[in-house]
Amino acid sequence: MFLKVRPLEFESRRPTVILNSQDADSMGVKALDRIELSVGSRKAVAMVNVAEHFIQQGEIGLYGEVDDKIDVRMGDRVKVTPCAPPESMAAIRKKLSGNVLNAPEIKGIVDDVVRNRLSDVEVTAFVTALYNHGMIMSEVSALSSAMAATGARLRFSKKTTYDKHSIGGVAGDKTSMMLVPIIASSGMVIPKTSSRAITSPAGTADRVECLCPVNLEIEEIKRVVEKTNGCLVWGGAVDLAPADDAFIRVEYPLSIDPLLLPSVMSKKKAVGANYVVIDIPTGRGVKFKTIAEAQDIGRKFIELGKNLDIRVECASTFGEQPIGHGIGPALEAREALMTIKYGKGQPDLINKVCHLAGVLFEFRGIRNGEEKALRALRSGKADRKFRQIISEQGGNPKIRPEDIPVGDRRCQIKSNLSGKVWWVNNKAIIQVARAAGAPFDQGAGVLLHKKLNSRVKRGDVLLEVYAEQGYKLNRALEVLKGLNTMGVAKEHEMVLAEIPEEEEHRQYFVMER
Amino acid sequence: MFLKVRPLEFESRRPTVILNSQDADSMGVKALDRIELSVGSRKAVAMVNVAEHFIQQGEIGLYGEVDDKIDVRMGDRVKVTPCAPPESMAAIRKKLSGNVLNAPEIKGIVDDVVRNRLSDVEVTAFVTALYNHGMIMSEVSALSSAMAATGARLRFSKKTTYDKHSIGGVAGDKTSMMLVPIIASSGMVIPKTSSRAITSPAGTADRVECLCPVNLEIEEIKRVVEKTNGCLVWGGAVDLAPADDAFIRVEYPLSIDPLLLPSVMSKKKAVGANYVVIDIPTGRGVKFKTIAEAQDIGRKFIELGKNLDIRVECASTFGEQPIGHGIGPALEAREALMTIKYGKGQPDLINKVCHLAGVLFEFRGIRNGEEKALRALRSGKADRKFRQIISEQGGNPKIRPEDIPVGDRRCQIKSNLSGKVWWVNNKAIIQVARAAGAPFDQGAGVLLHKKLNSRVKRGDVLLEVYAEQGYKLNRALEVLKGLNTMGVAKEHEMVLAEIPEEEEHRQYFVMER
Repeated sequence: MFLKVRPLEFESRRPTVILNSQDADSMGVKALDRIELSVGSRKAVAMVNVAEHFIQQGEIGLYGEVDDKIDVRMGDRVKVTPCAPPESMAAIRKKLSGNVLNAPEIKGIVDDVVRNRLSDVEVTAFVTALYNHGMIMSEVSALSSAMAATGARLRFSKKTTYDKHSIGGVAGDKTSMMLVPIIASSGMVIPKTSSRAITSPAGTADRVECLCPVNLEIEEIKRVVEKTNGCLVWGGAVDLAPADDAFIRVEYPLSIDPLLLPSVMSKKKAVGANYVVIDIPTGRGVKFKTIAEAQDIGRKFIELGKNLDIRVECASTFGEQPIGHGIGPALEAREALMTIKYGKGQPDLINKVCHLAGVLFEFRGIRNGEEKALRALRSGKADRKFRQIISEQGGNPKIRPEDIPVGDRRCQIKSNLSGKVWWVNNKAIIQVARAAGAPFDQGAGVLLHKKLNSRVKRGDVLLEVYAEQGYKLNRALEVLKGLNTMGVAKEHEMVLAEIPEEEEHRQYFVMER
Repeated sequence: MFLKVRPLEFESRRPTVILNSQDADSMGVKALDRIELSVGSRKAVAMVNVAEHFIQQGEIGLYGEVDDKIDVRMGDRVKVTPCAPPESMAAIRKKLSGNVLNAPEIKGIVDDVVRNRLSDVEVTAFVTALYNHGMIMSEVSALSSAMAATGARLRFSKKTTYDKHSIGGVAGDKTSMMLVPIIASSGMVIPKTSSRAITSPAGTADRVECLCPVNLEIEEIKRVVEKTNGCLVWGGAVDLAPADDAFIRVEYPLSIDPLLLPSVMSKKKAVGANYVVIDIPTGRGVKFKTIAEAQDIGRKFIELGKNLDIRVECASTFGEQPIGHGIGPALEAREALMTIKYGKGQPDLINKVCHLAGVLFEFRGIRNGEEKALRALRSGKADRKFRQIISEQGGNPKIRPEDIPVGDRRCQIKSNLSGKVWWVNNKAIIQVARAAGAPFDQGAGVLLHKKLNSRVKRGDVLLEVYAEQGYKLNRALEVLKGLNTMGVAKEHEMVLAEIPEEEEHRQYFVMER
């Protein structure tokens, strides 16, 4: 069938055309079917939308990418033929029925996901099939490899590279910002790529962005790493494992995360890491509630690492309260800079950073790695390296913690009891910080004045909410009212707090990984 | 946040807005999240799309239905607030994790599906969860009831109504067109609603449309049924169980059909049926391959019927070849009209019609129902009733079989062997008929000259392809070349045919049910 082109000034992730319903019926195609368009030897495949009125019979509406590809203008005639779904649909159906996929089948799916050849319905079917049926290790390995192979790759002249990853879920975790300069300062290569926040108040990329640019291109990253041995950049700018973004678009609205292992490890493979330490926050309020669960996932990371030729160690870390006291991009950047500058700060933060850095040192055969990390921190060596990295990434190496702007709309939350902090609600604090505007408003967040086991007097400030805009501060306080952020009580009191039924502001789900 | 309205002349099934990515970030919303729009007291919830350039910062693009709902024009300011996904998402997540849903949860999902409050990702997650985890009978009942309750309902002054349904998959099945007048001619009420073809060459609605209009509204249907005791109309025009259409949009591209039971029975409930006979075609090439499988699904239909207060009987019928000889809307309408007019025709067709009609007669306490049906057919009573129904639905009651136009582009396929027809490939014939243009081109299809066990001489015509357009005839012949439609061989030859590897023109899947 020949149709007359009508270009639409419309953006879409996928090549899409709109047909009049009469023409669609006549060709026997339905919404979400594919058609091939051809003009001479130029061809493109696009997904079909059907309209009753918006597109006339005999016309075809083309979204931006489609008319670019076949180079047509308003009124041109294109030949339109129905075409079959991509072969990977057979593999998706196979997984949907609970069968195990082989490596070429998985590669085919990932290729089509990356090239935007599958519809939302089809990608969702794949992701829910993984969620329902799980994957055996050969599938996880194949998926990780395919995800790494379809994106950018980093390689450096020093062949051995180190990396660190956190499964996430605990607020205020500025560990990576501090670990990278510690490791790099000893001459080991650590090209750290990080994500931005999805459901949390800050990702490492958001935090570092308060100090220097993080949207570096591949060549810039290489230059920074060759010069400093490290970097702290946003992985999204270099398109590592781009299939993951397509999967996240489905996982996030469904609050499911069946791709944890391949998502993390495909990116480690893409940056060429040889040794990786993985932090698994453990406890109430994070993904893995018990040490047994953490061990279970940790062993899978180690096994997957072997298949991908990456040596992995995992650490289960205490995840029942935020790390340090700042939560939100600027508040966290301030705290990291301060801690690295003076070589001291919140003990939980320092302990976590040095322990994880120690694992990387020990990969290199250094004994007492944790002590070595602590020395690098206290001696100012890590601070110098941090500022060198900031400078090479295009930031001001002389930046002081107080130079980082934070929100000027603030509210202190005080305790109406004396006693001790018995618990801190990680999830609640994350929700408050996000309501205050984090991560988009860099200066927004929460500053904890008290932490677990802190002594509290009536009237003491427990925490402080920061915002850049008044209505967001109010929104955060509104959210805070419905949640229990900290439990304060006298010792030996069995009832810690009257727990009201929590208003669910939004189904709470951690997408970070 | 306040944004300036930009109406888009765009249609979408769901209320949708487009935000600039900066504004979306600032509110913390992502693609497929929901926002509430308000102007004074007028409010609407819409799903978010995000664009980089197409929509400027400070603007909001509104699809047609949204600006109608809150009554705004270009440049008006609307207040925009993020809002939570509908509550039914919690139930979808629950099912996704393999849990059993209760009736209110299922009702909530169906309500939101019908009101277009769920995205493709969310509806797909529900459908694949049903496919993966199945449903227990209480869930199937609740789903059927909810699907019936969210659509139109038919009720008649005669309280007892009868109905017939076929699970489909066998080509050329014009049984309903003939069964309805037989039953109605004996004074029993049978308000038959049918579907159009999805993956087959013709649905009953497509067939009947060659004789009279089928897009009747509720009041017209009532009038026809009150007058004639029967009707043969398109269910889609009266919006029975509209949730089913939304589910089909997902099931069709995935080639899965986890909603067979509720899909069929919700519609029977909606039309107020008290007694239903269900035809389960059985054999190679249709949904249920063995009598054991047919019995299994049959028992479920009977049990579900009890829960819905509908008495159900099921018949497993031979499904290994098309019924009668015509396949395609006009060819089938011709055959049905001819058979009912002369009271004779292909024995398999007459046998199937009379057997199923007999079951309905026996519900009413009539013995030898099948004989009664045959009498109605042979005596001309059914023919008179058929023409009365055609007339009341707005067709010409004097129509003769040869008045129905069929395609004039034809090609006969001849046998190059002598012997007997050992098998007929239902699926292949369906694909050829669709390639020829059926069901959209009413006159397109396939006419079988030989059936199972027919004696064949070399050079005899096996079948004839009909099309309305030359290129579709060529397309059909192209499809036919790659498939084996009939197996002809001498008796006692063990090798029936050399079976070449079949080209898969499209993953074959029967959506009809």
